[in-house]
Amino acid sequence: MTRRFIRPVPPAEEWPDIAGGGLLDRRLFLRSGLLLAGSAGIRNALAQGDAPLPWLHTPGAPFSAYGQPSPYERYTARRIGANRAVAGNGVSFTPLEELAGTITPNGLHFERHHNGVPQIDPALHRLTVHGRVRQALAFDVKSLLRYPMRSQTLFIECGGNSNAGWHSEPVQRPAGSVHGLVSCAEWTGVPLSVLLDEAGVDADASWVIAEGADAGAMNMSIPLAKILDDCMLGLYQNGERLRPENGYPMRLIVPGWEGVLHVKWLQRLELSAQPVMSRNETAKYTELLPSGKARQFTFTMDCKSLITTPSHGQTLPGPDIYQITGLAWSGHGRIARVEVSADGGNSWADAALQGPLLPRSFTRFRIPWRWDGTPAVLKSRATDDAGNVQPERATLVAERGRAGYFHYNAIIAWTVEDDGLVSHTY
Amino acid sequence: MTRRFIRPVPPAEEWPDIAGGGLLDRRLFLRSGLLLAGSAGIRNALAQGDAPLPWLHTPGAPFSAYGQPSPYERYTARRIGANRAVAGNGVSFTPLEELAGTITPNGLHFERHHNGVPQIDPALHRLTVHGRVRQALAFDVKSLLRYPMRSQTLFIECGGNSNAGWHSEPVQRPAGSVHGLVSCAEWTGVPLSVLLDEAGVDADASWVIAEGADAGAMNMSIPLAKILDDCMLGLYQNGERLRPENGYPMRLIVPGWEGVLHVKWLQRLELSAQPVMSRNETAKYTELLPSGKARQFTFTMDCKSLITTPSHGQTLPGPDIYQITGLAWSGHGRIARVEVSADGGNSWADAALQGPLLPRSFTRFRIPWRWDGTPAVLKSRATDDAGNVQPERATLVAERGRAGYFHYNAIIAWTVEDDGLVSHTY
Repeated sequence: MTRRFIRPVPPAEEWPDIAGGGLLDRRLFLRSGLLLAGSAGIRNALAQGDAPLPWLHTPGAPFSAYGQPSPYERYTARRIGANRAVAGNGVSFTPLEELAGTITPNGLHFERHHNGVPQIDPALHRLTVHGRVRQALAFDVKSLLRYPMRSQTLFIECGGNSNAGWHSEPVQRPAGSVHGLVSCAEWTGVPLSVLLDEAGVDADASWVIAEGADAGAMNMSIPLAKILDDCMLGLYQNGERLRPENGYPMRLIVPGWEGVLHVKWLQRLELSAQPVMSRNETAKYTELLPSGKARQFTFTMDCKSLITTPSHGQTLPGPDIYQITGLAWSGHGRIARVEVSADGGNSWADAALQGPLLPRSFTRFRIPWRWDGTPAVLKSRATDDAGNVQPERATLVAERGRAGYFHYNAIIAWTVEDDGLVSHTY
Repeated sequence: MTRRFIRPVPPAEEWPDIAGGGLLDRRLFLRSGLLLAGSAGIRNALAQGDAPLPWLHTPGAPFSAYGQPSPYERYTARRIGANRAVAGNGVSFTPLEELAGTITPNGLHFERHHNGVPQIDPALHRLTVHGRVRQALAFDVKSLLRYPMRSQTLFIECGGNSNAGWHSEPVQRPAGSVHGLVSCAEWTGVPLSVLLDEAGVDADASWVIAEGADAGAMNMSIPLAKILDDCMLGLYQNGERLRPENGYPMRLIVPGWEGVLHVKWLQRLELSAQPVMSRNETAKYTELLPSGKARQFTFTMDCKSLITTPSHGQTLPGPDIYQITGLAWSGHGRIARVEVSADGGNSWADAALQGPLLPRSFTRFRIPWRWDGTPAVLKSRATDDAGNVQPERATLVAERGRAGYFHYNAIIAWTVEDDGLVSHTY
């Protein structure tokens, strides 16, 4: 008397492995073993009408002008890593392992501040475009909101994200608390080419020096060609105006390039023949190589992926079929492929990629996995459409040494112990 | 000494109109007239260092675990239209005219409640699948979070959205306060086909009756074929777990169909041979036609668009070039085209559509417009890839009469007066 409406799949125990350690075909859905079910479970559920669940018997809360998460989700929060010696200096991490999909909600977008979060009155804020231009211009917020805009879903990743990977031993913290200096949002703003065209760029200008209106007046140099190619003045994040900690009333958006260039609270764009050689492009955001030379102006964030579930600190309740899921991104373009290994990299299987596949944006990947209860090492490896492949850690360390601090994009590995506990490993 | 890095465009005054009333080619960027500029403006801006702007001189606020909008944006809020006679019954509107891009931030997603917002403890909540199934099943939240998921960006629109359009006279309220019972988010959840396959659907089942865990136990009937085709159990909205007012801990997602079917706080799915004939599919959410018959089970939300800027209550400061922008969506599929008219529908020009063009999702459109300071009537007209064209109001009223209340999708018109004030017109 049972009719199947979806394509028939064989019982889970008959599904063939497609790579070592129990990886299954990405097109198979999980089907078994995860439910409460059983007659006891049903009786409990169907008896709910008699249980003292107040929300079934009492009208709920009134309407709200601006919604907030459930109090039961209060632990889904940014993890703050502040510099105790300097107030307002530090980072806060997006809890990637608590999230699903690809959009980071605005309240959980990662932060990196050098001098705290300014509370800027938009009526007093100005953006000045000056230097090697035909005519210096100043724009107020109200005027800029009337300019033509475009929208693009983009990740922003701090150049220092995942830098614990350079340590000798694998750091044992939740995935987001190590790798969560990356977030993804739909940004809307004014193409910078429009504003610069209006000011008239001199022929000898080749850099743009961007400065924020925080008390540190944080500044960075960006090649003019990039600014004119695809950068924008970000005014909206996921539909609404920027949050203060993300640059209200305006920030730079520099698609696919390191986070520090996305200057927040932007107040000045100076056209220049040379970079400014500020602290953040000399003493910081450079990478010391084994040769003793340092890489400088390493703008593009490389191809990278991260399994968010299972990940450090989670526990698998027992042998079963699980969905492995995570995120992949590349500053070079679109994610073309994510492979997953359940045997520490001996064999790999292609994960399903959730469309649409957008350039310089998060891509969510998923693959089913049958865990047999023995120790396993899970890895993911991303490839972008420019042909870049996420390297193994040993390869990256051999190339860059361990003094670089920035731009760590090696494959991330999680160990599943026989008791189901997940931890970080190299 | 000026070098142009972007493709040369002629001065704005030389741009040709491509439709009546000053509509310009969608590929042209605005270039002039909107800036502060002039030497006075520059001096003001460049003198900022001496001005008492506290955020330039004092370290800013510390890190926050969960961010909030700027206090200067506090008026970007949902507009509440509550039923004074019944606590917790009513709607709140998304302020569409204040937003940009296509994602609605979770705090501003529209709401429709019949009995307030329950504060559900997820540890006590169960979803029961029963009725015409091989085996009734109950799921707790923790188990469901381990099921395979998919993500999709989808609009949800209340069947009663824009229903002021049936009135004899055009209602004078902001765009979002009339048409803002529609929002768009990235939803992540478990395909319902997976759960129903596990329960085993009987051959004589053809409807699913969904019930919420609010005190009203709001319920609706949905054809089984739709449930198995593309519906999901929504658990995450824009990356994070659902907000209470959007169904925490779980809701139905019914792509492209009317909002009332997306049952929030979902606690029961009953497989049935017939619909339940609940209040919300008999006395409500049906449309009385001029013939005296009523349409029932009118599930799909039709092809529609709305100009959000300029729109009611905004004022254009003077003759100039403006960017007209708005949103289009269709429950039938992808938006294929949005045309804009600046002369009340006498002539039309194609607006630029912001990609990616996703099915059953918001599409942002934009087109430049030169306003000469004389009265103008702005309209937008959407076409979807199934060939549906948004009708003029007169056509819709002739077909449906004015007693229908639901499913109003006619072309929306804004009048710009010679003083720049924008208001609603038919």
